[in-house]
Formats: sequence, structure tokens, C-alpha cells
Amino acid sequence: MRSDRIFNFGAGPAMLPIEVMEKAQKEFLNYNGMGASIIELSHRGQEFISVLDRCDRLIRELSGLPDNYKILYMPGGGQMQFSAVPLNLLGRMPQKKALFIESGSFTRMAREEASRYGAVKVIASSAGTDFDRIPGFDHNAIEQDASYAFITSNNTVRGTCWNKFPATGEVPLIVDATSDIFSRQMDFSQCGLVFAGLQKNLGPAGLGLVLVRDDLLEYAMPQTPRLLNYKLYSEEHSLVNTINTFAVYMLMLVLEWMVDRGGISQLQVINEIKAKTLYDVIDRSDFYQDFAQKGHRSTVNVTFSVANRSLLDVFLSEANERGLYALKGLNAYPSLRASIYNAMPLEGVQCLADFMKDFEHRYG
Amino acid sequence: MRSDRIFNFGAGPAMLPIEVMEKAQKEFLNYNGMGASIIELSHRGQEFISVLDRCDRLIRELSGLPDNYKILYMPGGGQMQFSAVPLNLLGRMPQKKALFIESGSFTRMAREEASRYGAVKVIASSAGTDFDRIPGFDHNAIEQDASYAFITSNNTVRGTCWNKFPATGEVPLIVDATSDIFSRQMDFSQCGLVFAGLQKNLGPAGLGLVLVRDDLLEYAMPQTPRLLNYKLYSEEHSLVNTINTFAVYMLMLVLEWMVDRGGISQLQVINEIKAKTLYDVIDRSDFYQDFAQKGHRSTVNVTFSVANRSLLDVFLSEANERGLYALKGLNAYPSLRASIYNAMPLEGVQCLADFMKDFEHRYG
Repeated sequence: MRSDRIFNFGAGPAMLPIEVMEKAQKEFLNYNGMGASIIELSHRGQEFISVLDRCDRLIRELSGLPDNYKILYMPGGGQMQFSAVPLNLLGRMPQKKALFIESGSFTRMAREEASRYGAVKVIASSAGTDFDRIPGFDHNAIEQDASYAFITSNNTVRGTCWNKFPATGEVPLIVDATSDIFSRQMDFSQCGLVFAGLQKNLGPAGLGLVLVRDDLLEYAMPQTPRLLNYKLYSEEHSLVNTINTFAVYMLMLVLEWMVDRGGISQLQVINEIKAKTLYDVIDRSDFYQDFAQKGHRSTVNVTFSVANRSLLDVFLSEANERGLYALKGLNAYPSLRASIYNAMPLEGVQCLADFMKDFEHRYG
Repeated sequence: MRSDRIFNFGAGPAMLPIEVMEKAQKEFLNYNGMGASIIELSHRGQEFISVLDRCDRLIRELSGLPDNYKILYMPGGGQMQFSAVPLNLLGRMPQKKALFIESGSFTRMAREEASRYGAVKVIASSAGTDFDRIPGFDHNAIEQDASYAFITSNNTVRGTCWNKFPATGEVPLIVDATSDIFSRQMDFSQCGLVFAGLQKNLGPAGLGLVLVRDDLLEYAMPQTPRLLNYKLYSEEHSLVNTINTFAVYMLMLVLEWMVDRGGISQLQVINEIKAKTLYDVIDRSDFYQDFAQKGHRSTVNVTFSVANRSLLDVFLSEANERGLYALKGLNAYPSLRASIYNAMPLEGVQCLADFMKDFEHRYG
């Protein structure tokens, strides 16, 4: 790593690949010989349209997204979709009802937002065990008159993830994949819609990526704000308003970097090694404590704690000194979290694992 | 100017000050000695909060915004406010009625969007003269039971602007100032709310700036999406979701640059000289044609045409060769537009004026 850079384990906006950052810096004043930055060019000009087209192609190449899915780039990030999803999809069925399998606080926020526009029903929840797992549920609970069923593929805060998405029959499965999109292979054909804010695996903050099956574009309610309307975004190639051009450009660079790394399957292999490296240190003694139940552990957000809580501040302070940054979790417990998205190199994870072992050796 | 940069007369996303771009490039990989880019840091961390706080202070310092106005940074740009304004403000009065003084296609879009949520009334329009002026109107038309009255301060497409905002009595005046905010002095105390997308005078695309009087935060309708709710943004210092951190950071740099330039009053002096330089060339003969009525002419979007339309392509092509970029207007007529926001240096305008005179000399 460059000596002036840290390993940033923050949950997002997160570390981006150094190769991407260096390329963006190099052409920041002069994109593609235009004599202007990409952020200074019209979103309707040929240069930017090429960037947008390239994102489309790279996403399809990397993800194997079926042809009947549209790619939309929308204002805001993941949370804006908490409103857009019900506004666009509740009208699919007359009951205007959405089902939620609640695996964390973000699923809960999505459900609260949906309740503005229709009926919501929690068919399973792991709130009772503080979201330490993906809840079990009865497939019969997927009521077939529901407009959609909603899950969060990875719980950033608690560090759990769905290993296999639930089968929901004819009810479209909606997946908030903000924290793990393109970090592991997903079967998009099983989903009606997948969305993600860019700021964890895909780029900077301020843009939402939406992958949506084209039969789901027809149900927007009349009160849907123009800039949250999927059909309009699909028809106008996401250029309904002035799009966040910088975020689209950075997304293109990140996607190119992913292709260079061998695509999602190869990134998944590395991400699993990275996660195992940390979980192995956590599991080998009682010095560290895990949080997420085994079998439900996230590959991209590793949550843990130091059994002796009085050592937490020392841990964080020593880590900072070694350039291991932003390891503090959101909550009192689990108090530590290492977010290790695609851009976190194995080297960074190894440094953290070495530090954890050394810390245990000195304080254990 | 640096020899590898063009003068970009595009309407937006637009040219940014070269000093701002160079600073952003220099610290792109390492912000403030953090060892990470500003776009890689948490929006809830101390470093980014300092950036947000500094934007607040600079906006108040530059604009003289009264203390009872809140500063909000919201997803999307100007157009997202076409939905947010009615959702937040129509409920101010039981009639849920909004008044529009229509001076261009964007006012019309704002009106169409508002009609989803309440009653709309156009009290004056210059559509009949193809928006070549700000429409005259009778002050009695400002019905005092309206929730708000809406204007667009500068028509980017047609090149007109309000010289003096209309007096609307107790009815809050809502101003879409996307294309001229902080390019000239405005009396914000006369307005209930002023909004702008950043991408013309203030930064890159993907963020909306909203300046709103604090008594107007109380009227959001129940169907208002969480991320369009003014009160929530006010209460949470715009950190309701993951904010577009890059845009906020660039805004800070642009605002600092504006202070260095002597503030809005000094920028206005320069902007008026820039506009006069171009209008003088347009007016001195019949070779060029103006479009906006005198007395209604925009200082930041100068629209014009070549009387002999067969010369248009030659004009654009020769301009491009000289590094005078993106002069094509949106419409068949006026076919040319020079957008000369704060970041366009006098030197660029002088180059364009010289080229126009030379072109006239050769083809007139």
C-alpha cells in the first residue's frame, strides 16, 4: 500500500480501489482529452452517455443480469428506494400489501416507510435475538396476494447475511443489497428487484442502482414523485433530471476494476478468504467475542468485540496508530466492526488479523 | 488558461473554477492528512461534519441569509424539489393551492408535478411569446389563500431572468434559483424558500441546496417520502441518509473560492461585465440575433442566433476548434447559448466575443 494511505474499515462511504482512485485523480481535470473534467460535462453529451452505456454493459457482463431486467441509476442511495419501492410496486395487487422478513434496523426502516403507502406485514423477524441471525420463516407465510416481499441481503450493522434468498413463488422478491451487491454471486433471476446505494462496493455516495424486472415497471401510484418513477427512468435511460455524473463515472471505473480482477466470482473467493481470516482470529480463543450466529455471518461486515470491554478504547487507538481505521461499530455491542468490501485488499485484512493477534498476545 | 483546458459554455453540469478543480485533484487521495479521500470517509465522521459545518457558515457569510432560515442539502438536484416543495408546503393552507408565474419550461414542469398533490393555478405566463420575457402580472392575482407562489428566477433555456422578485404578501414566495443562485445578490428575506441544484454555479450534479424559512417546516403531507421531508433534514443536519459527500465537499471549495473573489457582490459585478460583453457584440449589427427581451435578459445564460442560419454549424465547429465549447442551445431557436456562470472567467467571455466579431467579419 502507498505509505500515505490508511486501511479504512468504515461501513460506508467506504474505501475505493486505489487503482480507481489514481485513475480518477489523473484525469480529474481532463477527461478523455476533452479539456474538461467529466463532472463539468453535460449529462446529455456524447462523452457522458458513453460512460452510462459502458456502466450498463459492464453490469450485465459482471452480473449475468437477464435481458428482461432494466438498469436504473436513481437519485439518493439505498434509502431513497425505501420510498420508491412501495410507491412503484404496492399497486401491483389490489390489497397494496408488502411482506417483510426483518433481519435488521434497515429492513425495519424500509417497512416503516412502506407503511405510508399501503399495508405491511412482518412475516419473520430476528429482532428478539437482537438481529444476530437471519430469521427462520415458514414459506406458507408468503401470502400470494402480496405486492412484494422485501429482504435485506446483508445486515451492515449486525454483520449477518442471507446465504440463499428465500423462494417467494409469484410474489416478487425485493432485495436491498446495498452492502453486498457484486461482492458475491447472486441469482438476480430469482428477484423482482435488487437495489443498492453505491457507497459500499460500487463507488461514492449519492446514487442508487436499481435492477428491476421489466414487468414491474407498470404499477407506480399517482402520487409517485417524478424522480422516483421506475418507468420514467427506464424510458429515459435514467436521464430524467441531471444525474450525479461523478458517481456514474466512478461506478464505471469500479466496474472496470472488477472485470480486471476476474469478476464477481473471483472477488467472492477473495472476500471469503478475507472474512475467514478475521473470523479465525475471533474464534480461536475467548479474548474476542463474535456476534453473528455461525452460518449467518456476513462476508463483508465482520462484527466482534473484545471480551474485556475496558480494552476497547486501547484497541481502537492502537489500531488507528497502525493505519487500521474506522473499526468502531455503530452500537455498544458488538462494539467492533471490520467492513471489508471488494476494495479492501487482502493485505489490509492480514494487517488487521496480525494486529488482533498481537493485541491478544499483549493484553490477553 | 491552462493550454489543455477548454472554455466550457455548457448550461450544466458546468465549468468549475480551475482553482477548485486543482485543489480537489491534489487532495483526491488524501484529504486533510487523513490518508483517505473525502469520498471514502464516513458522512457521520468528524472530518466530513467539519466540511458540512463549513458550508453552512460560508453560505451564511456569502448570502446574508437571515438566522431564521435553515440550510438543507438534499438528494437529487433542482427537479427533486419540484416534488418536495408541494409535498412539504401545499398543506400550509386548507385549499392546498399553489400559484405559478410561468416564465419557462421548468416552471411548467414544477407546476405539473405540484398538480399531483393539490390545486395549481397559473397567474401569469409568457408562453404566448415563447418565454422571451418574464410575464407581467397583477399583484391582486396573488390569492392570499394560496399555500405558496412559485417562480423560476432565471430561465436557463431562453435566457431571461427576474430582476426583482415579485411581492407576494403573506404568501411564501418559492424560488427555483438553480441557474443563478449566488451569481447575483438576492434578497432571501423576501422568499419563503429558495432552492438550487448545485451543477451550474455551486458544484457537481447530484445535490440540491434548499434555503427555507423555519416556519415552513411544519406542513409536510403524510405521503411525503422520508428523504424529501424538510423538517427531518433540518433536524438531522441533512444526514438523514448517506449524503452525497463529494458534492458537499466540492460545494465547500466553490464557496471558499467565492469568498476569495470578494463574495457575491463582486462576482455580480464581473458577471454583469461578462454578459454586457456578449450582448454588445450581439446588438451591434444584424449579423447576430438576440432572443430575450431587453430588460429581461439573463446575466448567466446569453441566448442568441446567427441571422443566417446556414452558418450555424460553421459557427459551432469553428468555436470548438478555438476551445469555445458547448455553445449549442437546447432549441432550434435561439440556437446558441453561452452559459457564463461564476466559474467562467472574463478571459473566456472575451475569447468568445473576439471570435464572434471575427466570425462576423469573415462571414458578414
